[in-house]
Amino acid sequence: MSEFRLAVVQLQVTSVKADNLNRARRLVKEAAGQGSKVVLLPECFNSPYGTSFFSAYAERIPGESTQVLSEAAKENKVYLVGGSIPEEDGGGKLYNSCTVFGPDGELILKHRKIHLFDIDVPGKVSFQESETLSPGSSLSMFETPFCKVGVGICYDMRFAELAQLYSRRGCQLLVYPGAFNMTTGPAHWELLQRGRALDNQVYVATASPARDETSSYVAWETGTCYLQYLADIRQQIPITAQRRDDLYAVTCVQEGSS
Amino acid sequence: MSEFRLAVVQLQVTSVKADNLNRARRLVKEAAGQGSKVVLLPECFNSPYGTSFFSAYAERIPGESTQVLSEAAKENKVYLVGGSIPEEDGGGKLYNSCTVFGPDGELILKHRKIHLFDIDVPGKVSFQESETLSPGSSLSMFETPFCKVGVGICYDMRFAELAQLYSRRGCQLLVYPGAFNMTTGPAHWELLQRGRALDNQVYVATASPARDETSSYVAWETGTCYLQYLADIRQQIPITAQRRDDLYAVTCVQEGSS
Repeated sequence: MSEFRLAVVQLQVTSVKADNLNRARRLVKEAAGQGSKVVLLPECFNSPYGTSFFSAYAERIPGESTQVLSEAAKENKVYLVGGSIPEEDGGGKLYNSCTVFGPDGELILKHRKIHLFDIDVPGKVSFQESETLSPGSSLSMFETPFCKVGVGICYDMRFAELAQLYSRRGCQLLVYPGAFNMTTGPAHWELLQRGRALDNQVYVATASPARDETSSYVAWETGTCYLQYLADIRQQIPITAQRRDDLYAVTCVQEGSS
Repeated sequence: MSEFRLAVVQLQVTSVKADNLNRARRLVKEAAGQGSKVVLLPECFNSPYGTSFFSAYAERIPGESTQVLSEAAKENKVYLVGGSIPEEDGGGKLYNSCTVFGPDGELILKHRKIHLFDIDVPGKVSFQESETLSPGSSLSMFETPFCKVGVGICYDMRFAELAQLYSRRGCQLLVYPGAFNMTTGPAHWELLQRGRALDNQVYVATASPARDETSSYVAWETGTCYLQYLADIRQQIPITAQRRDDLYAVTCVQEGSS
């Protein structure tokens, strides 16, 4: 169990939900066929990304989209980090939610995006998820035979504390389904991933939708997580043991539920 | 006070302490002549970097080297972050210590490196500062008319928590005198700086000695800190306000003294 293959599916997302679901199902199968044991889909994989779409595409969990994810996980015997979908909670609230399914098709966890994407860079990008979405308030981790995994969604990645908590609790892989834009994407997307990995000595995987919605291009990538490599690095540059816990602490104030 | 010029002096460091001090004094003057209000020297600027040298080059504070720094700060009316020197505390303990002097030549603070550089990357680099040095246990911040500044030394930069605490306490500039090696330098030096800056929305400045001790090349660079730019960014991507303080916290366990 010292290494495993992970697939990042850069899914093409269109306005036709059924197409998005079929495409996801097909690509999960392809990734598994190439030996991937963990498969990651992008944020908002079943719906266009935008506050005007969330309500129309929102589903209960379980529901149509998560049923497809469950079946894809089971059919291909993979851990499927199902990107995210707009979730309707039955009480009228909407969330940006990631579901994770095990190789048996069972729902392992649901992560509701903790940090809503509210930014305003004049003349470049303005977005207010909080206009329509509510935030989650729970950390989300799951165990695999390979390693423990921490889950965040896109803007969650900007907050170092979440990654630090996951790492302190034993996660060796952090996954962030995302959909960065063309302003903050080129500026920060790669840097954030590399920073989280370096500071916490963990693997970080992110999935974004394919860029051009009008093209037929659908990308997916696989990579291998060498857990022994992490162990080596942690021994060579032992910052975990060297942290000055006598001086500072990163703590979880409360274990919320969402 | 919305912007100021900062100089990073990549000082050539040789085994002749008097030469190192003279060179530092000359370059601080040059930097000030070009309008720099804050000047940063590298780690271990008065001595070769190595556990076998620390004891021989160590000084009390105040002492010969810090006297030169005090005079250079006063003569040039700058805030001088005096890299670091091996400090002997009078009781036989050695520290890797950074002193900061104000434009009046007064000592503002002394930062003793909190995280000692103990790493072992087989076949590449092995170093154990703790063989000869003791760690400090204090955060070190100082006020200027421009902004509040947080101080770390080299390996201190690997620990995100220190930067987070400085940022939470209002620092808009973090300075790290450093001397990264040719293994972890290319791998991590720039990434760490950019990560600290991005995560905390602060300026980060580092100074390293000039690489080739046998050359006469002495580099220094100046940059401008635009504090309004930070304010704009913090408004556009307001992660400070968006942090979920209800969920997690980075705290100072104890205010040590060293």
